[in-house]
Amino acid sequence: MIRRELPKRRVQSFSDVLDRVREIINRVRVGGDQALRELTLQIDGVKLDRLVLEDSYIKERSEVLDPKVKEAIDNVWLQLTSFHDLIKPPNLGGGSEGVEYGIIWKPIRKLGIYVPGGKKAYPSSLMMAGIPAKIAGVKEIFVSTPTRGDLDPAIAYIAQKLQVKNVYPIGGAQAIAAMAYGTESVKAVDKIVGPGNVYVQGAKFLVSSDVGIDAIEGPTELVIIADENANPKNVALDLMAQGEHGSSSMLVLISNSAELLNEVSNLLQGDNEFYLVKVSSLEEGIQIANELAPEHLSLYTSRARELLARVENAGAITLGNTPPALIDYSAGPDHILPTNGWARFKGGLTVFDFLKGISYVRAERISESLVKSAEIIARYEGFNVHANSVGVRYE
Amino acid sequence: MIRRELPKRRVQSFSDVLDRVREIINRVRVGGDQALRELTLQIDGVKLDRLVLEDSYIKERSEVLDPKVKEAIDNVWLQLTSFHDLIKPPNLGGGSEGVEYGIIWKPIRKLGIYVPGGKKAYPSSLMMAGIPAKIAGVKEIFVSTPTRGDLDPAIAYIAQKLQVKNVYPIGGAQAIAAMAYGTESVKAVDKIVGPGNVYVQGAKFLVSSDVGIDAIEGPTELVIIADENANPKNVALDLMAQGEHGSSSMLVLISNSAELLNEVSNLLQGDNEFYLVKVSSLEEGIQIANELAPEHLSLYTSRARELLARVENAGAITLGNTPPALIDYSAGPDHILPTNGWARFKGGLTVFDFLKGISYVRAERISESLVKSAEIIARYEGFNVHANSVGVRYE
Repeated sequence: MIRRELPKRRVQSFSDVLDRVREIINRVRVGGDQALRELTLQIDGVKLDRLVLEDSYIKERSEVLDPKVKEAIDNVWLQLTSFHDLIKPPNLGGGSEGVEYGIIWKPIRKLGIYVPGGKKAYPSSLMMAGIPAKIAGVKEIFVSTPTRGDLDPAIAYIAQKLQVKNVYPIGGAQAIAAMAYGTESVKAVDKIVGPGNVYVQGAKFLVSSDVGIDAIEGPTELVIIADENANPKNVALDLMAQGEHGSSSMLVLISNSAELLNEVSNLLQGDNEFYLVKVSSLEEGIQIANELAPEHLSLYTSRARELLARVENAGAITLGNTPPALIDYSAGPDHILPTNGWARFKGGLTVFDFLKGISYVRAERISESLVKSAEIIARYEGFNVHANSVGVRYE
Repeated sequence: MIRRELPKRRVQSFSDVLDRVREIINRVRVGGDQALRELTLQIDGVKLDRLVLEDSYIKERSEVLDPKVKEAIDNVWLQLTSFHDLIKPPNLGGGSEGVEYGIIWKPIRKLGIYVPGGKKAYPSSLMMAGIPAKIAGVKEIFVSTPTRGDLDPAIAYIAQKLQVKNVYPIGGAQAIAAMAYGTESVKAVDKIVGPGNVYVQGAKFLVSSDVGIDAIEGPTELVIIADENANPKNVALDLMAQGEHGSSSMLVLISNSAELLNEVSNLLQGDNEFYLVKVSSLEEGIQIANELAPEHLSLYTSRARELLARVENAGAITLGNTPPALIDYSAGPDHILPTNGWARFKGGLTVFDFLKGISYVRAERISESLVKSAEIIARYEGFNVHANSVGVRYE
């Protein structure tokens, strides 16, 4: 359906399921493995014969992977590695006024990756979470993914490449609860990342006071800002491609060209809602995009570079005639991106999501004025022992 | 009270108040300014005559600040600026296989800083939140802080230095709700940062599906790892200093020296619980610290540099005879640090908390193997239009 209007910025949509999710989490915290088995039977209709897949089984499953898919994964692996390597931050040290200080980046110790399942398997999601984690230096990676029957061969192959510690054939809110709090078979981790349905995201939200999460990921969002030189067929394909993720995708085309909007309108097919919006200038389009804070932003114009500087809120951006779907698979940057307006305050997944910046200080011959300043402000705030603990060092 | 045992790692403690906090948030979302007035009267016993303090009033209040405190703030300002400037990341660009990619760091647009009040004012908190935000390039900063009577002069002075847009004399969960969702007088922001009591932290948790938060901050934590060369008076002072934050502080001394432990034990005073633990080596102490994941870690030994490399989980670290309280005020790094085990997955506040890394891609002459890889994996996942949208570009 074509709408000639602007959509509202998306907001999270798991409110309705939170009570149910809270109940699932509590059952897992109390009942452990037994609760995981019961919930998986009850919710997914799957009888789990084991909660941890054996290494030999994962190896066996990876060996049935189509060699063409294996080669594609290997190719993409190198490209994602090259991007995330570029972003990896160095430790930094410096000093001022006799204080030596710095920041050291340390990887998260235990990481849980949730990989959604369903009709199909999503090996790209495991790569997009696992590769930056590996580059950050995370040593213990655990993966939970629902399987109906055997483990998907591509997931098995990638899990091996990532040297994953354990793969759990568990899905839904119960998988998140298990990784957050641990059971007899499932290790409690320090952080959980990965996309999933509203139950998974609701669970990530509820456990996020106790373990780290990457973000709460919702339906796909794409805003294309295009001018009269954009190829209408490609624009229509890009919109329909993101529409493949489901009817709740937010799909928006903004253009200063009435002709382009009409041409694209005639080419769009399928059940999605497509929002087509006429603006008087591309700059106006950028302003609208900044309000929508979309997951994907495509600047389909030769002015892309120039307009990039004006973007404030977006997950990832494709420039010119670059298909947004390339970021979903092989361009290099991550496809685990902020949705539901989270691009206002968070970027896509990078090595930073798997690192902690720990600051350190050594102050031996600190300037007198800094000592006095610390004492004065500490006393102003009523913290006299704070002041004394600083003062005695540098008398 | 001295305990010769290890404490457990702290966990968040707002569960008991979440229902009450949820109710407060809903009242603000529905009732706006009127609800803010009612809740502030009801909870804080304060009758608000205005919800936004006038610029002229803030200026007036800043002018009564003791010049010594003003000078101390100016000094600390420069030191914090020098540290956060060091950490500020550059935009990065690169490419591989015909794909040009990179990451641009963009500041958050609208930021809310919560500054706790109570018996005293905490100007250091406003600096620790505001200075990295300013260095990150945040343009619109809003501050909410409970006032009983007039605005604290140091808060007023710092708000002016930060060019804060609005100061709201509002505290508690209602302040967080107002900044998250907006009212007639309070602007909705993109992210909320700052320490506060369990109501404030519970509110930050509940709004965190819709707006960014820095972390959920709990009671202070300090682990000191010291050897026989540490000065017992300084060690005792450091522990008692962090004890000033209240009886729920976690205060731990770990040493391989029974003598030091006994000497410190004799010097400790006050109502706090102090945990004193004997280990056979400093390395064992580091292992314990990594499990506790404390907010503050002091390596009070000449081997500090060497041991630093073994630390995995800590908020901020002081080396050698450096007082942890120096980080609270003037060393340079931030004092808004992870607590309740959050150091397992998050560092202290830096410019990164106020920036979003937006990735971009331009792919004009991408290698054929990457195009094919994207198509193969997309089709494997059942996303044929994704595959087509990539394929048509590079035929």
